[in-house]
Amino acid sequence: MGNKVLALSGGVGGAKLVLGLSRVLEPRELVICANTADDFTHLGLRVCPDLDTIMYTLAGINNQKQGWGLEGESWHFMRSLQRLGGPDWFKLGDRDLATHILRTNNLAQGLSLSEVTRNLCRSLDIGQCVLPMSDDPVGTLLDTEEGTLSFQDYFVRRRCRPAVQGYRFAGVESAVPQPQLMALLRATDLAGVVICPSNPFLSVEPILALPGMELALQHCSAPVIAVSPIVGGKALKGPAAKMMRELRQPSSALQVARFYRGLADGMVIDPADASE
Amino acid sequence: MGNKVLALSGGVGGAKLVLGLSRVLEPRELVICANTADDFTHLGLRVCPDLDTIMYTLAGINNQKQGWGLEGESWHFMRSLQRLGGPDWFKLGDRDLATHILRTNNLAQGLSLSEVTRNLCRSLDIGQCVLPMSDDPVGTLLDTEEGTLSFQDYFVRRRCRPAVQGYRFAGVESAVPQPQLMALLRATDLAGVVICPSNPFLSVEPILALPGMELALQHCSAPVIAVSPIVGGKALKGPAAKMMRELRQPSSALQVARFYRGLADGMVIDPADASE
Repeated sequence: MGNKVLALSGGVGGAKLVLGLSRVLEPRELVICANTADDFTHLGLRVCPDLDTIMYTLAGINNQKQGWGLEGESWHFMRSLQRLGGPDWFKLGDRDLATHILRTNNLAQGLSLSEVTRNLCRSLDIGQCVLPMSDDPVGTLLDTEEGTLSFQDYFVRRRCRPAVQGYRFAGVESAVPQPQLMALLRATDLAGVVICPSNPFLSVEPILALPGMELALQHCSAPVIAVSPIVGGKALKGPAAKMMRELRQPSSALQVARFYRGLADGMVIDPADASE
Repeated sequence: MGNKVLALSGGVGGAKLVLGLSRVLEPRELVICANTADDFTHLGLRVCPDLDTIMYTLAGINNQKQGWGLEGESWHFMRSLQRLGGPDWFKLGDRDLATHILRTNNLAQGLSLSEVTRNLCRSLDIGQCVLPMSDDPVGTLLDTEEGTLSFQDYFVRRRCRPAVQGYRFAGVESAVPQPQLMALLRATDLAGVVICPSNPFLSVEPILALPGMELALQHCSAPVIAVSPIVGGKALKGPAAKMMRELRQPSSALQVARFYRGLADGMVIDPADASE
């Protein structure tokens, strides 16, 4: 029996469970794989919302009230950008900008997203291993009643309002899963895999859609446990329940269980959903 | 006799005269050509110090005490960047960043530096016409006792300490002078050209070194008046006097006059230098 736990996580909802895990596991026992299909380039800057939320949460500098970004953030950049007529629908805090600018510059210099993430974690004194699901860019596209939208356009600019008819992950077929991640799934020191209570479609499915990932999860010797993001028919966070209804699925923990069938060995649900 | 004044300017010293000119001329009567050989790419962001100093000064938002950047600037980005181990020798203020990020993104989208500058001026309610000397990149290189240095490395990182043995402007031979600038020099509504009290070598010479520029100035019908940046043997601002000594020239207004000989029809000096 190994001692490492691998958490597959999206943003805020997943990061909360990751934080909980970090409190019961030694830093070296916790490896987090972050969805990167939400990543996008805004104003020329590479923004990785899920990676950043996980890093900021583990570093204890996340804005808990707001649910994203940094605690005590200021917005002088945004006000200047507005004055200059720049796009203001995506909020970039003054402190948060350092992450995006440094990452963008390091990527342009030829570092991989994994290397950049490792450097950022080291600077933030994060002892856990945080991995992007892939070093190759993957981008979620949503088919909605208002046309095909990129993830941030749907999620931030339109606040998840358009009804979703379908979704896909551009580039995922040719994306190489992060090598450390794949090695860990084959390793004997893996104690378990936790699928965090993140959006199954938009946060977890991009990870599962990577070539070889589902097979690696099915073949790994450790148990795979999914934590339901749906409690009492509602999403803990974000548009998961709304999307399930729009995709003509019941928005229930049971439906989440069906989604992870053949993959998860167990599932954590709320007592409220025990009857299902 | 025309009614337009063209000012050739570097950063702080030149911007002060430009501000003075803006108070006695109608906005449409003043055209400013900024040196862009100080421009550089830092952390992936295109920074144009002289253009920005001129814009911020005309918009009345420059930091007068500091001599560069914006009034009431904050430094949350820089502190975060330091924490992340990023380079901190060049200070980028939270508000100032909006200019650099928007410009870099617009240039990447295919806009010229002239177009980007025009848009920035419009957003900042600047009525005067501010032109980069060229839309092509030109970069000042200084041969010093510590080797060849780029301008910002010499000027900011090493605070002008290394003795200068020579200098050149990489790319200037193939840079196209800004077309509006060249048209203005041929136009009949040009009342005069003012060479601002900027560093003759590092701020004005890059403009003069553009192909066809010296000839255009010599042939233009309006008088060309240089304002000495050296008063009583000292530079109003920056390393001009120090450089003159290192280049074995007297640091005097007279030497500045020699530098502009054949180009300037008149020169403005301080009464302190009248004896020269």
